[in-house]
Amino acid sequence: MTVARPSGRAPDALRPVRIERHYTRHAEGSVLVSFGDTRVLCTASVDNRAPGFLRGKGEGWVTAEYGMLPRATNSRNDREAARGKQGGRTLEIQRLIGRSLRACVDRGALGERTITLDCDVLQADGGTRTAAITGAYVALVDAVAWLKKRGAITRDPIHGAVAAVSVGIFQGVPVLDLDYAEDSACDTDMNVVMNDGGGFIELQGTAEGHAFRRDELDAMSALAEKGIAELIALQRAALAA
Amino acid sequence: MTVARPSGRAPDALRPVRIERHYTRHAEGSVLVSFGDTRVLCTASVDNRAPGFLRGKGEGWVTAEYGMLPRATNSRNDREAARGKQGGRTLEIQRLIGRSLRACVDRGALGERTITLDCDVLQADGGTRTAAITGAYVALVDAVAWLKKRGAITRDPIHGAVAAVSVGIFQGVPVLDLDYAEDSACDTDMNVVMNDGGGFIELQGTAEGHAFRRDELDAMSALAEKGIAELIALQRAALAA
Amino acid sequence: MTVARPSGRAPDALRPVRIERHYTRHAEGSVLVSFGDTRVLCTASVDNRAPGFLRGKGEGWVTAEYGMLPRATNSRNDREAARGKQGGRTLEIQRLIGRSLRACVDRGALGERTITLDCDVLQADGGTRTAAITGAYVALVDAVAWLKKRGAITRDPIHGAVAAVSVGIFQGVPVLDLDYAEDSACDTDMNVVMNDGGGFIELQGTAEGHAFRRDELDAMSALAEKGIAELIALQRAALAA
Amino acid sequence: MTVARPSGRAPDALRPVRIERHYTRHAEGSVLVSFGDTRVLCTASVDNRAPGFLRGKGEGWVTAEYGMLPRATNSRNDREAARGKQGGRTLEIQRLIGRSLRACVDRGALGERTITLDCDVLQADGGTRTAAITGAYVALVDAVAWLKKRGAITRDPIHGAVAAVSVGIFQGVPVLDLDYAEDSACDTDMNVVMNDGGGFIELQGTAEGHAFRRDELDAMSALAEKGIAELIALQRAALAA
Amino acid sequence: MTVARPSGRAPDALRPVRIERHYTRHAEGSVLVSFGDTRVLCTASVDNRAPGFLRGKGEGWVTAEYGMLPRATNSRNDREAARGKQGGRTLEIQRLIGRSLRACVDRGALGERTITLDCDVLQADGGTRTAAITGAYVALVDAVAWLKKRGAITRDPIHGAVAAVSVGIFQGVPVLDLDYAEDSACDTDMNVVMNDGGGFIELQGTAEGHAFRRDELDAMSALAEKGIAELIALQRAALAA
Amino acid sequence: MTVARPSGRAPDALRPVRIERHYTRHAEGSVLVSFGDTRVLCTASVDNRAPGFLRGKGEGWVTAEYGMLPRATNSRNDREAARGKQGGRTLEIQRLIGRSLRACVDRGALGERTITLDCDVLQADGGTRTAAITGAYVALVDAVAWLKKRGAITRDPIHGAVAAVSVGIFQGVPVLDLDYAEDSACDTDMNVVMNDGGGFIELQGTAEGHAFRRDELDAMSALAEKGIAELIALQRAALAA
Repeated sequence: MTVARPSGRAPDALRPVRIERHYTRHAEGSVLVSFGDTRVLCTASVDNRAPGFLRGKGEGWVTAEYGMLPRATNSRNDREAARGKQGGRTLEIQRLIGRSLRACVDRGALGERTITLDCDVLQADGGTRTAAITGAYVALVDAVAWLKKRGAITRDPIHGAVAAVSVGIFQGVPVLDLDYAEDSACDTDMNVVMNDGGGFIELQGTAEGHAFRRDELDAMSALAEKGIAELIALQRAALAA
Repeated sequence: MTVARPSGRAPDALRPVRIERHYTRHAEGSVLVSFGDTRVLCTASVDNRAPGFLRGKGEGWVTAEYGMLPRATNSRNDREAARGKQGGRTLEIQRLIGRSLRACVDRGALGERTITLDCDVLQADGGTRTAAITGAYVALVDAVAWLKKRGAITRDPIHGAVAAVSVGIFQGVPVLDLDYAEDSACDTDMNVVMNDGGGFIELQGTAEGHAFRRDELDAMSALAEKGIAELIALQRAALAA
Repeated sequence: MTVARPSGRAPDALRPVRIERHYTRHAEGSVLVSFGDTRVLCTASVDNRAPGFLRGKGEGWVTAEYGMLPRATNSRNDREAARGKQGGRTLEIQRLIGRSLRACVDRGALGERTITLDCDVLQADGGTRTAAITGAYVALVDAVAWLKKRGAITRDPIHGAVAAVSVGIFQGVPVLDLDYAEDSACDTDMNVVMNDGGGFIELQGTAEGHAFRRDELDAMSALAEKGIAELIALQRAALAA
Repeated sequence: MTVARPSGRAPDALRPVRIERHYTRHAEGSVLVSFGDTRVLCTASVDNRAPGFLRGKGEGWVTAEYGMLPRATNSRNDREAARGKQGGRTLEIQRLIGRSLRACVDRGALGERTITLDCDVLQADGGTRTAAITGAYVALVDAVAWLKKRGAITRDPIHGAVAAVSVGIFQGVPVLDLDYAEDSACDTDMNVVMNDGGGFIELQGTAEGHAFRRDELDAMSALAEKGIAELIALQRAALAA
Repeated sequence: MTVARPSGRAPDALRPVRIERHYTRHAEGSVLVSFGDTRVLCTASVDNRAPGFLRGKGEGWVTAEYGMLPRATNSRNDREAARGKQGGRTLEIQRLIGRSLRACVDRGALGERTITLDCDVLQADGGTRTAAITGAYVALVDAVAWLKKRGAITRDPIHGAVAAVSVGIFQGVPVLDLDYAEDSACDTDMNVVMNDGGGFIELQGTAEGHAFRRDELDAMSALAEKGIAELIALQRAALAA
Repeated sequence: MTVARPSGRAPDALRPVRIERHYTRHAEGSVLVSFGDTRVLCTASVDNRAPGFLRGKGEGWVTAEYGMLPRATNSRNDREAARGKQGGRTLEIQRLIGRSLRACVDRGALGERTITLDCDVLQADGGTRTAAITGAYVALVDAVAWLKKRGAITRDPIHGAVAAVSVGIFQGVPVLDLDYAEDSACDTDMNVVMNDGGGFIELQGTAEGHAFRRDELDAMSALAEKGIAELIALQRAALAA
């Protein structure tokens, strides 16, 4: 199967991925992640209190917030702060990021504290939520390292790694890591979050045009597995740097 | 593989499903759908205007809103109207219902009008979103029939049928149509929306505990296919009554 | 005086009234009340905390919330949760329901807890607030019985019964229990809440067209007394069932 | 029947009432009304557009808004603008004021324009809503006179007069025009709006303590009639000045 | 330099200023301040709790809220409580008033309590924020005197006096205390807050038309100094009355 | 006068300033401006419609919005979009940026369109509003150049240049361009906006501790003049690159 991707990439090729740690100086973890032209600033902030529903339970919490600068996109979007509420898409994405990251955290080992992952899109070109998850993982690891260095925690609350990528059916062919041109033209789009053990954490597929078949689901899952393995290797390299 | 489901059901058994048409008298389509103790009132309301972003394009729109009565659940939830905003879960579900139903609608044939599907949960026992999609489809068909009877549309805008069910891994075994007791205890939970051609429209899987493997994804997909085929038969029976 | 009521009822006739207890299974009290085609689901939820302004005073509280499903009416209303606020009519009605029910409650005997009465209109045909008060009373009694059975309270906090009905001047004639057709055409409309001792708890009359005279006020009050006596008998019968 | 009113007034005595026209200079009608220590600034503002729901129907609209300065009362209330919403009591009162004033307006004669009555309480001592209605009537007449003087309307849209007063049962005795000390201690409280023909426009009675009987309703209605006749005479005198 | 001010005033003349204490009866301090036709009601309310961020620190707080009645101005403005939020201009002004008054308060001497200054504009003709600051100072002094009389505080927390005035360049000439006619036509507008020691507390200049030069800044500062000295004398006289 | 600035800078020294054009790719103008560790992304977005209040008047508009990423600061701030409103500080700053930039725009020459300047703080270290104005000017010039290149406008709507800097009194000495360490410790803080003709556009001084004298105002104004001249040179250099 061949397909002419707008970017000229092979069907199973990721965009160039860059993970820059310590991008800003105040946050305990601060990562600028780029999937091609998609750039997301992910910061991890430590708060030494658990949220209300966990007080006194000896457990911590990891949560996420997501935002997009008004002109991160081709035409300007209203600023959500000015509109007075976060849209459904925003809430959906930040819930996804939070669940995904909690999947690799031992909340007892974290202790009664909260780590908030702020994922703010500086420039969007498709795949902002998967870039956000992939970058937020690195920011989270840095924030936990900061806690460990200060002796605030003893056991490592992070088990394994988590990364995410989108896959889709573009002109009948399964492709990896859709950019905006592909995303807006494809029939089916699936966001996949996996861990380094090859297990699925989240899988959200949507048929934009025609409904997808079991064999397409299989092909997309396989592509996602390949892409996420590469992303996890890149996270490791960034953390080792 | 055997499992003791709290309800005593076989792993591949749906709960008793009931689809009552014409449940309330004002709406163009009005269906009370029950998946066991989960009861959702789905109404379809016709408005002879397209939403702003479609004005003058000769196309219609199908959208959904979702709500849960404050005491539909075991402990009372705040009323969203009183809190002043719909929560992230609500927005996520109503976006899912809207996308799912639009997948079987020819918006050109619908013409410049809007059909709003209100899905209000009177009683919750797991699977409210899948019951809502399954019931809303029937309400939508009734509303379209109402339009056809009045000669407002000529071509049928509905192609095929759409239904939804949840599947999960409960005590290591894939099970169909989780009730609340299973949902809150299971490791993995997946909501699946399919059409009557066996194609996937939406697929949203979440690992609550351990991440799920490819073979588990396969088993759950197969269960969903079986359940949805049964639900579509029940929709047909209800519409033929 | 004779009048042709759209429903064919006599001027002093209530619509068929039905009070179904245990309509949903989670709430401590759950009643579906019907005044003709008006159907309101009234649930009573017990919370073992008093509201903030009563903490430490040894008293409880009874409060109400009111909502209408978007398509309970002839044309669809915006969902208040989506609009981001409850309208003035909604707030006015839920304040009325709360005050009316508190009039038969000994808050000291209730102890430091809150009972919330959620009155949600599934179908509207006039008189939703009076149906809500009449049904909520039965749900409240059931919730209190639930507390007594568990030994949580010893003295009965309910003294007497409370019910409500609307009266009006329709084509010059005083009539009882207006349905929507009458309500939208009548000159004067009055909602009356009374107890089983024949005392007035609330009385809210509005001249839509011409102002009403003292003798019309008298005639409407007498009709309300008759109707409420019948409603209280129906409440008793339902509670005895 | 005798009663020691905190103010020393006879049971059927109004507080000193003052109606100052032209209190502020920008509004088409501007009245400071005082019922004893209760002082409400009522302005009438003319807008040469009808509200959306009346466009093109050749009719106008009269509406009201009500507010209370934060320290109009004994202890400071939150500013509603800062809280981000108007409370239920505020909405209830402004709806009452609007309905009451519309009862004396021929909306066809007014033409496609809107008159907004802003009633802002500078100091509260009970009876703010009845003072507001009584004062807003005078502001409305002034605004209509302004329109007539400019030739904008030909037929007088005001028919008759409207005024309001509260009545109640204080220590077992029916009393007129309750001040705050009486209002907070009385058993029953009724706000009455009437026109100069002696007809009832609105009547809202609430039993705070014991439910009231028919004879008490009669006595309160008679007191209200007396008080409103006096208020209408004072309105006339103010307008003639 | 001569200029024809719309009011006929000399360039360095204030409008007639009136400071009426005890304007309403509930607040601990209540002042109606008039700068010509600009009339602002300033109340000071004492709350015996410090705000959350100061609890347990032995310090008090002074804060301000500002509002404008909808028809205080030439054409009616939306009511902020009805719109559901305070506008940017309102927030900016109330922050300015709060900062200005805190500049003369020893928060340790005040003790753990909050004084809220509500500044509500009854009629606007330019300079509402400067009138508000000037009047709020007097209300604050009265509220502190009330605390001293009750023995609640021992040391005087007020050091010095604070007043404010606007200055501007109107038709090329620096003028003092702009009214609305001047304000809307002038090139530059500056609000100045000073203390009785001749020190600047706040200074906010805006070039509406052409940018202003250093010599114009000097001239405006000198005018402000003169005007504020007069205002402080008027405050003293009012407080001595 | 000597002072030990935390940064070691001379009293009249700016921080290192960097102006990077074309920082993101979608906006018509996109500038990352750095004043030391303060980094603000300023984008200019062109919309070919004037705002409602200017429709049909042949004039355009320039407006600004300001935001701060939650972890741009030392401790995390709530996300304004999640809180549901922009704070007073945010509104005040975005109003200041908008007014400042409009001061160099000929709105007739711009034609009926809107340019929105989004200033989002990625990292804060004092002086975010002055950096925002300085960077937004460059983004505005780039957006206007984009319009000119497409032939959408013929006359240049930009006259002159606008830049801003903060000045203050730190340990008794006037200093230029305060960083966060100085800002939080200084007695007086003044934000100054000027044009390239040396005229003042905005001047906002606040005494945090002791009130400032005329000679201090003079010294600060002189420092601001010097700093802004340097900033305007840097803007020119960036635009020439």
